[in-house]
This record gives sequence, structure tokens and C-alpha cells, in this order.
Amino acid sequence: MGELLNKTLASIKPLDKEAMRKASARQDTLIKPQGALGRLEEISITLAGIQRKAIPQIKNKAVVTMAGDHGVVAEKVGNYPQEVTPQMVLNFVNGGAAINVIARQIGARVVVVNMGVAGDLPAEIPIVNKLVARGTANIARGPAMSEAQAIQAIESGIEVINSEIDKGLDIVGTGDMGIGNTTPSAAICAVMTGQSVKNVTGRGTGLSDEQLEYKIGVIEKAITLNDPDANNALDVLAKVGGFEIGGIAGVILGAAARGVPVVVDGFISGAAALIAEGLCAQAKDYMLLGHLSVEPGHRIMAEKLGLKPIVTLDLRLGEGTGAAIGIFIAETSAKILAEMATFGEAGVSESE
Amino acid sequence: MGELLNKTLASIKPLDKEAMRKASARQDTLIKPQGALGRLEEISITLAGIQRKAIPQIKNKAVVTMAGDHGVVAEKVGNYPQEVTPQMVLNFVNGGAAINVIARQIGARVVVVNMGVAGDLPAEIPIVNKLVARGTANIARGPAMSEAQAIQAIESGIEVINSEIDKGLDIVGTGDMGIGNTTPSAAICAVMTGQSVKNVTGRGTGLSDEQLEYKIGVIEKAITLNDPDANNALDVLAKVGGFEIGGIAGVILGAAARGVPVVVDGFISGAAALIAEGLCAQAKDYMLLGHLSVEPGHRIMAEKLGLKPIVTLDLRLGEGTGAAIGIFIAETSAKILAEMATFGEAGVSESE
Repeated sequence: MGELLNKTLASIKPLDKEAMRKASARQDTLIKPQGALGRLEEISITLAGIQRKAIPQIKNKAVVTMAGDHGVVAEKVGNYPQEVTPQMVLNFVNGGAAINVIARQIGARVVVVNMGVAGDLPAEIPIVNKLVARGTANIARGPAMSEAQAIQAIESGIEVINSEIDKGLDIVGTGDMGIGNTTPSAAICAVMTGQSVKNVTGRGTGLSDEQLEYKIGVIEKAITLNDPDANNALDVLAKVGGFEIGGIAGVILGAAARGVPVVVDGFISGAAALIAEGLCAQAKDYMLLGHLSVEPGHRIMAEKLGLKPIVTLDLRLGEGTGAAIGIFIAETSAKILAEMATFGEAGVSESE
Repeated sequence: MGELLNKTLASIKPLDKEAMRKASARQDTLIKPQGALGRLEEISITLAGIQRKAIPQIKNKAVVTMAGDHGVVAEKVGNYPQEVTPQMVLNFVNGGAAINVIARQIGARVVVVNMGVAGDLPAEIPIVNKLVARGTANIARGPAMSEAQAIQAIESGIEVINSEIDKGLDIVGTGDMGIGNTTPSAAICAVMTGQSVKNVTGRGTGLSDEQLEYKIGVIEKAITLNDPDANNALDVLAKVGGFEIGGIAGVILGAAARGVPVVVDGFISGAAALIAEGLCAQAKDYMLLGHLSVEPGHRIMAEKLGLKPIVTLDLRLGEGTGAAIGIFIAETSAKILAEMATFGEAGVSESE
């Protein structure tokens, strides 16, 4: 493995139990019946453990949206042409995509990263260039990438998040853009959870019954052909993954290593989370699940990771849209803990 | 019935189908697969129908939090003393309650209304005074209020929302404060939905099994004794309701009459929504359900009203906290519709 990846994995500590105990104790002094704010209380306590502060703070927010292409589109697994990937990168830069709208609303910056876009992008646009290669190889014919490229993808993600943390960052959301990327994500999900391909494969951007059946066949073929080792997450990423998926796994691991909570988006980010968790089981304590996607495999990923979604709004867009909404509610939870009055301060009578 | 109430009920029109058609058509031109933003798309279309605009706008936001006391606390149905109601009103004014924290985050004003607080409140505090009486009568011994008081409570709510709309208001959330108010809310829910009291009664701020059993008995007794007419919502409010519940029903009806979307909070606001819907079935089209409460009757209310909750965060606080989170997501949906680029504008290739 690469040096940066090894160093990062070694830096991921258990959550700060003492900060969590203090946050939990403070929740019980706030002017409300104990537990009445349900998951907002839970989330605030998790944030305390991650940030190692009794009262966590969320001010600087970012969504890191990683783009990559997939050789498996040659098998016609989706309805959109590959040229949409760079077109959408330009839209992220121009502020017209859904993630831009939600990020503006929550006051988060959007960091767009080229991990592996196949088409041309103008040189001067304000994105982070971490191009591993112009799209993965076709997993229906061989491995997506070499092991060296898998390590490069993850380490690129770590570099991106380290740079963002250096600028000031209290929470990060993950996002993706890549035509065809529900296919490698379903493959990763099937391998890492042990579920059948049929159970974890969905309609992506909107397949018919027949197209779905065909997509399942392609994924089954890719897994049989490449034979990824479920106990070796790096091997799974290399055999059936994607560059943006590896990059997102790196963002998750890098955030965990530096005590920054990471709100995981939908199905593609979930695949990256499975890779991150495979490399370091401890990493999942640093994850919040922004939303539950309508892709059927996402629920299976969430169960495997032991994460409850913050919202369920039937989203299936990616880009980090569900993560951004999750960031907003995580911020609500932190503000509740920090700003609500206690019974003592407020002169409110407690329960009899 | 009162003149203002009659006039308000007569003003509630069907939603603007043409605005909804236009909003739906625009959603399908935005740079995302059709339907990929799930409930955010649905909510934006509902907002278009309510505001009668193809592109709804949410800038001015308010949460109206109505306070009232309940004579049934004499039966010892809860754990908190009645003095908490005015104490919490003071906290709303001082900005230290949960609703203040969330309202600040979403940029909404909090309008606190005294509908029927039993205890003393300082004269000079910035709340709206619509006191009907200092607490309802004990529903275990007789009706909560007279029919004239029920009308007064609802019309006070209409006056409050009319005044807020005059100041500028694009969306409103409802909230409540009132020690003991899950008891009348459960009674209203049982009567208006035809469910057993046992099915709709929960632990409120945290009752034991034994206390819950006792609370169910008190509610059953109140219904038997007062015999409210399920086909007459005003009778139900008068017999087993509360002043803040009537006030919230008025806010809902007044908002509907003037085309302002109303995000309904939890169990107490849900009881008010049932009263509003009983007075005018059309009113429910103007409601969004902010969240699904852990009170078991709330799900039954939601089904009766045909409303899907925006979030499920296991909240059981009231004050308008779940409504405020719902307002944020409703605003997200409107911003998506207004601010995302279309395929044409963005030069993105469409589905093949």
C-alpha cells in the first residue's frame, strides 16, 4: 500500500468517549424532556465524539463532488451518454446543478474533483485535478484498474480532504458524478455485503425491466470474471470499482483520520464507504448517512455499515445532494446542543 | 359560527392546477434524470399549487408557536407542572428554546401567542395576546370550553396569521406549548379518526407503562362523558380540545385561505390539522407535514390527512421544531425548481 494511505489508516482513532459523555450529559440539562429531540440528540453526541469536543461546532462546511467515467458503459448499462460527465462538471463550476443550489442554501463550498473523466475539460476551470486515467477499463472484460491506480485514487481523495481541512473544515459531505457508476457500485455492494447482485442492483437514472435484467447480468459477469476478494477492499476497488469511488473512500478515511465528520451521500458514496470500512473498520464511526436512496442496494449498504439515514426523500441523483441535506440537520443538532438554555439558566421546572 | 371563520372557510380554493402543471413540466427540464430528486420535486409542485405560481418562492418564513393550558392536568396525566407553560413562553421570548435555535438557523421569525396560559406572564413581553381563558376546563369532568370559546380560539388563529401574512410571509410552520396537551390531542385523534384511544395515546414527555394506562383511562372517560360529534369539528374542539389547538387550526385555515403553505408540526399540531380539515376538507391540500413524531397517534393522523412526513427524526418536543426543519426542506425544493439550470441552458445531453 501507499505511504499516505498507511499513515492515514494508522491515524484513525476510536471516538472520544469522554466528549460524548459530556455532550450526552448536557443534552439532559437542556430545557426539554430528556430524549425529546430524538435523532438530533444522537447526532450531536456522535459529532462530539468525532470532533473530540463536548460541544461540537459546525461552521465551515464543504461537499466534495468527485467525477469519473466507467469503461463498462460500452456494455450499454445506462441511458445517458458518457459526454454528460464532463458536461455536468462544467455545470458544477457554473453553479447550475442541484448540489450547487443546496450547497448555497446551507452555506457549504463545493469542491469538484476530476478523478477520472474520459472526455476533455477546459484547463482553466476551478476544479481539483486528480485524474488517475480517462475512465476505468470495462469491468465486463477485465479489472477496472490496477492496484497501483486504486491506491492512487484513494490517496488522491486523502490529499483533497487534507487540503480542505487545512483551509478550515468542520464537516464534509461526499458526492459523485459519473455516467454508469451505479454499475460498479452495485458490484462493490454485492461483493462486500455478500448479497446477490439482483438484490443490490437498481434502475440508476431510470432503466426499464428488461434493461435492469441486462444490467444485473453484466454485473454478475464482471464479478465472476474478476473474482474480487471480499476480504481485501483494495482488490475489490481495483477489480470492479471506479476512480471517483476510490477518491470518495479517500475523503472518508482522510476525514476520519483528522476528526472531521463525514456525511455520506447515496449509492455511489455508499460503495466508497464500504471500501473505506473494509480498509479500516473504525472509519465507520466517523460517518453519518445523509439520506436513504431509492436504489435498493443502498439500504443493504446502510445495514452493513450500521448507519441510519438522516432523511429519506426518495432521492437518486448523487452529486452530494442527500449529503448536503444531512449536513444541514447535523448542524441543527450541534446548534441545539450549543445554543439551547439549560433548566438552570432558564428557570424552568423539571420533571416531577 | 363566527363571521371571520365563515369568511375564511369560504375563501379556501382548490390548488392552482395550471401552476402545478407548469412546475412539473419545468422539473422535467432541469439537468437531472426525471424524478431523481424524489420528494423535493413533489413538494415544489405542491408549493406551486398553493402559492399559485409556476415557480414558488420562499423568503419570508415564520413559525407560529401557540401556548395554552389544560384543566385535565388536575388528573395528573403528565410529569411536568403547569407552571412550565409560562416559563417556556418566557424562554421563547429569550431565544433559548429549541424552536428559537432552529428558527435562527433557517431564518424564520418565531411568533409566540398566548392562547390560554393559566399562569401569569409579564405584560411587556413581545408576544401576541389572544388569551381566551386561563386554561381549559378539565375534560374528565366536562367540556374543555364553550362553543363560543372554540370559535374565538380559531378566529384568533386566523387573525394572527392574517397579520403575519400582511407583514410578508411565504410559508408558515405551526408550533405548540402546553403542559398536558398530548391528552386533548389524543382525544381529538381518537374521535376524528375513529381509532381506539389505546391506539392513539402515547407517553407524551415520558410516562411509565402504568401512567400510560391511566392516561388512556382518563381520555376514554373524557370522550364518554362529553360525547363529541365526530362530524362536527367545532364540537370536538369545544368538548375535548384546547385553546392552542383551536388557534393552530385557525392558523392553518387562515394560511390556506390566502394561499400560504403551512408546515404542520407534530402530534398537537396534527390534532389541530384534523379540526381544520373537519371544518374544510380542502384545507389539507395546503398542509405539508414537517415530521413524523414518535407519538403513536401521529402516524394515524398523517394517514387520515393523506400527508407524508418530510422527515422522521424521532422528535417529540413540539414548539414547531419539526415544522421548522420541514420549512427548510420545502425551501430547498423551491430553490431547486427556481435555480437549477435546464438541459437547454446548460448544454447537457439528455437521456437516449
